[in-house]
Amino acid sequence: MSYIPHFYPVILAGGSGTRLWPRSRKGHPKQFLRFNGERTLLQESYARVDPLAPPDHVYVVTNHRFLEQVHQQLPAVPPSNLLGEPIGRNTAPAIGWAAVVLQQRDPDAVMAVLTADHIISKVDAFRRALRAAVDVANEGRIVTLGIEPTEPATGYGYIERGKPLGTWHGFPVYELVRFTEKPDRATAEAFLRTGRYSWNSGMFIWRVDRVLEEIRQHLPALYEGLMRVGQALGTPDERAILEEVWPTLPNTSIDFGIMEHVQEGAVIPVDIGWNDVGSWEAVYEELPKDGEGNAVEGQAVLIDVHNSLVLSDGRLVSVVGLSDIVVVETEDAILICPRERAQDVRRVVQALKDRGWEDYL
Amino acid sequence: MSYIPHFYPVILAGGSGTRLWPRSRKGHPKQFLRFNGERTLLQESYARVDPLAPPDHVYVVTNHRFLEQVHQQLPAVPPSNLLGEPIGRNTAPAIGWAAVVLQQRDPDAVMAVLTADHIISKVDAFRRALRAAVDVANEGRIVTLGIEPTEPATGYGYIERGKPLGTWHGFPVYELVRFTEKPDRATAEAFLRTGRYSWNSGMFIWRVDRVLEEIRQHLPALYEGLMRVGQALGTPDERAILEEVWPTLPNTSIDFGIMEHVQEGAVIPVDIGWNDVGSWEAVYEELPKDGEGNAVEGQAVLIDVHNSLVLSDGRLVSVVGLSDIVVVETEDAILICPRERAQDVRRVVQALKDRGWEDYL
Repeated sequence: MSYIPHFYPVILAGGSGTRLWPRSRKGHPKQFLRFNGERTLLQESYARVDPLAPPDHVYVVTNHRFLEQVHQQLPAVPPSNLLGEPIGRNTAPAIGWAAVVLQQRDPDAVMAVLTADHIISKVDAFRRALRAAVDVANEGRIVTLGIEPTEPATGYGYIERGKPLGTWHGFPVYELVRFTEKPDRATAEAFLRTGRYSWNSGMFIWRVDRVLEEIRQHLPALYEGLMRVGQALGTPDERAILEEVWPTLPNTSIDFGIMEHVQEGAVIPVDIGWNDVGSWEAVYEELPKDGEGNAVEGQAVLIDVHNSLVLSDGRLVSVVGLSDIVVVETEDAILICPRERAQDVRRVVQALKDRGWEDYL
Repeated sequence: MSYIPHFYPVILAGGSGTRLWPRSRKGHPKQFLRFNGERTLLQESYARVDPLAPPDHVYVVTNHRFLEQVHQQLPAVPPSNLLGEPIGRNTAPAIGWAAVVLQQRDPDAVMAVLTADHIISKVDAFRRALRAAVDVANEGRIVTLGIEPTEPATGYGYIERGKPLGTWHGFPVYELVRFTEKPDRATAEAFLRTGRYSWNSGMFIWRVDRVLEEIRQHLPALYEGLMRVGQALGTPDERAILEEVWPTLPNTSIDFGIMEHVQEGAVIPVDIGWNDVGSWEAVYEELPKDGEGNAVEGQAVLIDVHNSLVLSDGRLVSVVGLSDIVVVETEDAILICPRERAQDVRRVVQALKDRGWEDYL
């Protein structure tokens, strides 16, 4: 394998989801967790693009609070490539900032917006898809990787594809017709019936000049702010300007701000073993099981327990006579719920907020 | 209230049950645990007899490993009243030892054999019953307190009562007809139908000379050993003789060795709020519940949880969408099981033994 010319992976690692509480915390979100391996999700994200771009081509956008953690986990990436947001904003400002940084570095830069908190088990297919996407992006398209839907999920964005544009590196590529944020159930079912829809993976590939032009057209306030940030880059005022401008930027997602309006987009449907690890149920699905269907990490004694997820950080977890449950033990908190209630972890987090039990958040 | 003359409570505190794992441990058995209060079960046992006998009349028989814990929990009891068994034997040797000690101290001693690991919520009734029992014992009877059965349990001994002997302190007292160790279900059901059976509480009241005579008749090997121990009492050889004799004593329960053969026994049926705390289900029944039927101690977030026992020693326990379960969190282990499987805690303990995970026992 060889590096892709002018290719710059930009890993978004600012998230602070609550759906994997109690392992994910405000100060230690999902991207810094390990699942079934030595590497954290962030490190896996980096390892996936490592053969495609040299370390100094890799950028990470994260909350400034996480800069040190990111640096420790990705020591090969130059610290100047770690972009620390002054406060959490949505994805459009984060991506825009990376774009202005890259534009000054390389006018022919192609950036890949990648997520730090998803699992991609078919890494070779993913890498080939990125090569295809870069080629399509170099023809001026806004490219997105689409995931084949397995159910009419209402938690994802949907991408409708149109006519075929051709085949790159073995991947058929289609015109992007429409981008629809989280639909209701009936709409999602209708989408699936057409056979023309993919899930939005949150991964985008485009030339930097192209995406900045889209931002200029569709998010002019963001564009204006980014230009101020861009002018200050490399000057002593760089950080001060960023901190001044950042809170004024629109708190908008790239999906809503750009992708829903984009012309000349392309979608590449991919089969890359994608899992957004959006719940303990998703973690259960991802982990290897024993003969009883249990996914277990750490010390456990399970008697008459089946199809359950049991994760211990340190203490012995003993379960008798319960199946299809989730048990997650951490240093200061334990979660116990049926797998089918895994989404309700948010309600625990909300209850903790309501009670002011900040230490557990 | 006044002290009962010649009255000596003997608390048996040698047990090391596994049914309340992970709170009860080999080195920290049930009698040293707190439930719903400031005092441990052992301290409650002492407090119940405190108005009936001065502290130096109270004796505790326990494993020598627990002497220090007992002393710390019962500082008012003279250390010389704490009898430390060299190794764990059954109840007959423990009771016999206390009897020979008391016989030398007070030839008119009446001893009450009391348990250290049961809950008795109606303390006044219990104290009055003891007063009645002492009066009956002073007429030469072997007296036992009988608990009104609420179900045909197979885990208890059953006492059949015969003709009324009269009323003492408001308690009708009956002749003891028969003592039957843990019957099968059908037998237990038949017992209940007669209306003549009580559960064996494990609490006995008798004159010391009377019980030693029973031991001489029915357990002659034990009697012989006890006489050797008795001759050495107060001599420099006391401990050496005890340690030599003790392992040779028959490992027999007082129920099996004496009570099943006793003549001129008496039973006093009592309503004293007795609970042997023999399982987490029994603990659940004993503790106060909130509006959802949950008994909770420590930090917990419960969402859609009903009729459950949740005990935390330190960490936050969060449960979503499970009912009728037991969650017990301790420093190094957690138990999770349905209330109806509470008896299967033994299987966890067995699994720990099988795996050699001694630290958790």
